[in-house]
Amino acid sequence: MNNKLKITFLGGVGEIGKNMTAFEYNDEIIVVDAGLTFPDDELPGIDVVIPDITYLVNNREKIKAIILTHGHEDHIGALPFVLQQIKAPIYGSRLTLALVENKMKEHQNVTFKAISVKPKNVLKIGNFSVEFIKVSHSIAGSLALCITTPAGNVVHTGDFKIDFEPIDGVTTDLQRFGELGKKGVNLLMCESTNVCKAGFSMSESNVGRVLEDIFKNHTQNRIFVATFASNIHRLQQILNLAEKYKRKVVFTGRSMVNITEVGLKIGEISCNKENIIDIDKIDKYADSELCIVTTGSQGEPLSALSRIATGAFKQIKITNNDLVVFSASPIPGNEKRVYTIINSLFQKGADVIYDELSDVHASGHACQEEIKTIHTLVKPKFFIPVHGEYRHLRMHKQLAMSLGMEERNIVIATIGVQVEMTPNSIKQVGFVTAGQRLVDGYGLGDMDSNVLKERKQLSEDGICVAVATINNVSGEVVGDPFIITRGVVYQDEAEAFVQDTKAMIVSSLKEQDLRGCDPTVIRNNIKRNISNFIYKRTKRRPMILTIVTLD
Amino acid sequence: MNNKLKITFLGGVGEIGKNMTAFEYNDEIIVVDAGLTFPDDELPGIDVVIPDITYLVNNREKIKAIILTHGHEDHIGALPFVLQQIKAPIYGSRLTLALVENKMKEHQNVTFKAISVKPKNVLKIGNFSVEFIKVSHSIAGSLALCITTPAGNVVHTGDFKIDFEPIDGVTTDLQRFGELGKKGVNLLMCESTNVCKAGFSMSESNVGRVLEDIFKNHTQNRIFVATFASNIHRLQQILNLAEKYKRKVVFTGRSMVNITEVGLKIGEISCNKENIIDIDKIDKYADSELCIVTTGSQGEPLSALSRIATGAFKQIKITNNDLVVFSASPIPGNEKRVYTIINSLFQKGADVIYDELSDVHASGHACQEEIKTIHTLVKPKFFIPVHGEYRHLRMHKQLAMSLGMEERNIVIATIGVQVEMTPNSIKQVGFVTAGQRLVDGYGLGDMDSNVLKERKQLSEDGICVAVATINNVSGEVVGDPFIITRGVVYQDEAEAFVQDTKAMIVSSLKEQDLRGCDPTVIRNNIKRNISNFIYKRTKRRPMILTIVTLD
Repeated sequence: MNNKLKITFLGGVGEIGKNMTAFEYNDEIIVVDAGLTFPDDELPGIDVVIPDITYLVNNREKIKAIILTHGHEDHIGALPFVLQQIKAPIYGSRLTLALVENKMKEHQNVTFKAISVKPKNVLKIGNFSVEFIKVSHSIAGSLALCITTPAGNVVHTGDFKIDFEPIDGVTTDLQRFGELGKKGVNLLMCESTNVCKAGFSMSESNVGRVLEDIFKNHTQNRIFVATFASNIHRLQQILNLAEKYKRKVVFTGRSMVNITEVGLKIGEISCNKENIIDIDKIDKYADSELCIVTTGSQGEPLSALSRIATGAFKQIKITNNDLVVFSASPIPGNEKRVYTIINSLFQKGADVIYDELSDVHASGHACQEEIKTIHTLVKPKFFIPVHGEYRHLRMHKQLAMSLGMEERNIVIATIGVQVEMTPNSIKQVGFVTAGQRLVDGYGLGDMDSNVLKERKQLSEDGICVAVATINNVSGEVVGDPFIITRGVVYQDEAEAFVQDTKAMIVSSLKEQDLRGCDPTVIRNNIKRNISNFIYKRTKRRPMILTIVTLD
Repeated sequence: MNNKLKITFLGGVGEIGKNMTAFEYNDEIIVVDAGLTFPDDELPGIDVVIPDITYLVNNREKIKAIILTHGHEDHIGALPFVLQQIKAPIYGSRLTLALVENKMKEHQNVTFKAISVKPKNVLKIGNFSVEFIKVSHSIAGSLALCITTPAGNVVHTGDFKIDFEPIDGVTTDLQRFGELGKKGVNLLMCESTNVCKAGFSMSESNVGRVLEDIFKNHTQNRIFVATFASNIHRLQQILNLAEKYKRKVVFTGRSMVNITEVGLKIGEISCNKENIIDIDKIDKYADSELCIVTTGSQGEPLSALSRIATGAFKQIKITNNDLVVFSASPIPGNEKRVYTIINSLFQKGADVIYDELSDVHASGHACQEEIKTIHTLVKPKFFIPVHGEYRHLRMHKQLAMSLGMEERNIVIATIGVQVEMTPNSIKQVGFVTAGQRLVDGYGLGDMDSNVLKERKQLSEDGICVAVATINNVSGEVVGDPFIITRGVVYQDEAEAFVQDTKAMIVSSLKEQDLRGCDPTVIRNNIKRNISNFIYKRTKRRPMILTIVTLD
């Protein structure tokens, strides 16, 4: 019992203070968020990346609650894995919990208790009290937190923006942030995603106005809108426009169909349900009567839009009467995939409107002036920038200092860092086991696993397998060696390559007296010979596997 | 002999009308540019991508000249391959040819003739006359072309921008574009890279002013500048600032050292040579006396800057007195790599200034208003947008139409397309063999090659090799089967995995009567069994190779 608040940063790939954070006071822990990250090209074959929760598992009995700020995958996606090892009630907004329940359908063996909360609710959990504060973000039901403990209180923004014209009519609760600041806030943890962007983010309502212009100016076209399935307010605006401009709405893509069902069920989306039609009915309507809302705004190769663009989608073929609106920005790293789809839609005759050409998307993250607004309202004693790459956190630290904070009151944490706070102090006190666990089918791997290095090597230059049988008594090679290559040689060079490699092995083995030789020595010899032979001939360095059997 | 000008689009990956274009009039061909593209993550193990020049090889005897617009790799990089199959004199500016010669040093077996040209020069080649026109771009010595034939003339911009304050004092020759337009231009081929960007590109001189502010405000820091080695004017500005602010300049990275040597030799770069010092001398100078100019602005993993950031560079270790300026924008697709380096420089204590934070880079490509200026000066009868993805060409077509061109006078070509022009007509007439050839060590592959598909598959889930020996008479398995996996199973699951797979194979083979069986049938059986076994156990689908030998 030391009466300090310990904050442990458990999640995130590249980004810090995201995915998962633990707040610990004496023998009680509350966990904020349990998200995943999607792997990039550096992680071939990996399904998703989840936080290493060794620390939580080791302190399992202390965990009193898992609190979810909102329903995006990078905040809830690791729950199926986390809940297999940790039991604690889950708190979140109604939409967040509906998305969790939807996700957990595929994990029927995992049981959990979910309790829905609303802005202004205050939750008492042992020494903790957690107040939920309404914020705007690119998903409905997003919440900031004010976590109060005997060691002081923490305002945690979660992901947020300040939208003065939000679709649900309720703005980020600036008054409450100000009221808390007036009473005194010990620590602010504020997101940093857009801290390098000057100014104020665009309102979601402005996207609606831009989309309305598109509906108004393209009355005869069939209209497609690609967007994030979780952006409920965007979907609501599209449904409203479709109704106003007398178009039926078709949702395509699994997550789009799933999430709109959830949204309609809990009342987060409202519309005349007759306006939504099944994809199999589209032939009954003219182009001018249709609005097709689809997944694939990030160029995901198996998404509905990607299949539509390549012509592999059964019910929809692109014509030159089609207008496709990408109501989303490419997430960094997805640019090439997105532009490949845009190029092929153009080539198939469609017209395409995307964020480089028009304001058809608004970010869900606060820009510089919004971040300054929160700092100024909350006026914390201490500050930890969160949710960003290291460069964003550095920039956020500079921003805080430009508003008058002293450098010694700001901590930049990295993954695994543990920070201790008292009413009058804050400091980094150590590291715990933390980082990334790679979900690969049913297994879990580590970032520095050999499996990834081997996959990387295989992808560069392929593999060559050689099998030779040697008569242990005579020392002679029995029969022909087997040579199989994958990903090494091109068709026109393949046959000669295999023949020559075989001949090289046989002749090099003939030069040696192999009677009674250790097969390992022979194997290593063959391996070296093949490697040199292939490099000299092709300048490639495939992985070489050799197997020597004794007859 | 049909008195038409045929234009054939031979190069480019994703981008059209780039890398290489052939202009053909009766039995004469001139080739414009011979560039390469660097492969992305979709092309693992590939060194570079060059144009398929089958068409040129088949018309080898017609080729009279290879004309280079400028010295960037995407315009000259394929020359070592092209010159092995085609003999023709090469024309280009002095810097362009110096870079070509530097490149050809590694290909001593290829001989070629190079003739340097200057702006305003007119070259007579059979029925062709080619005039060279000065343009600004991110490399010195860039030229636009006016190609005149009996079928009409073509203005080809090459890569260009309009810089009113160019470092060499000579602006893009707008007067000549206007004069040609006044006399009458049949066809304009204009680059489209930045056609989606509104306004005017920033002047290179402005970058100099921003860099000067940095030098002025960081007198005590060691300053690093990462930029493109080929951006001679940027290097000149850095040399000037270093001299003014009394810093010695160190060039690091192979291409940086090479190109500055070339630039100094031919006088494109001028400075007091005592101001350039060797990297081994840096210990003799204080931080405040050094400016280190380095490659790696695109996050290339083996570049000097990347090795500095990871601590693997012998002579330079980052301290918190270091300031690193990224005087470049990430080329689309390189963002993650660049930001990884920026993050680790920050984490090592350096301060970093990059293009998201400050105007430390200017693009070399014309934005919308510059492109409109060229259209308005040249006022062509026909127009083909070039150098861009399909979406850029579509946008450029719209831009031309907004300036008054009729749609029927605009052709959007794709790779392999052949366009025929007469004084009064232009139309697409067919396709020739064209596209991408993948350079992989000493070999050449095709985009749809199995080699790439196999590498992709190997990178996703690895490989499992099984070797079993069967006694042909008894039908029994001889000894233990061999199981080797790479990139499939993680360490903690590996041993049990191999044992269980072996046992599965042995027991499945025991169930069958294998006497006299076809080894192919046995092999396919084993393969299927292993594949199902692994999927059920791991949910992964590695490549399976099985070898069955008969004893």
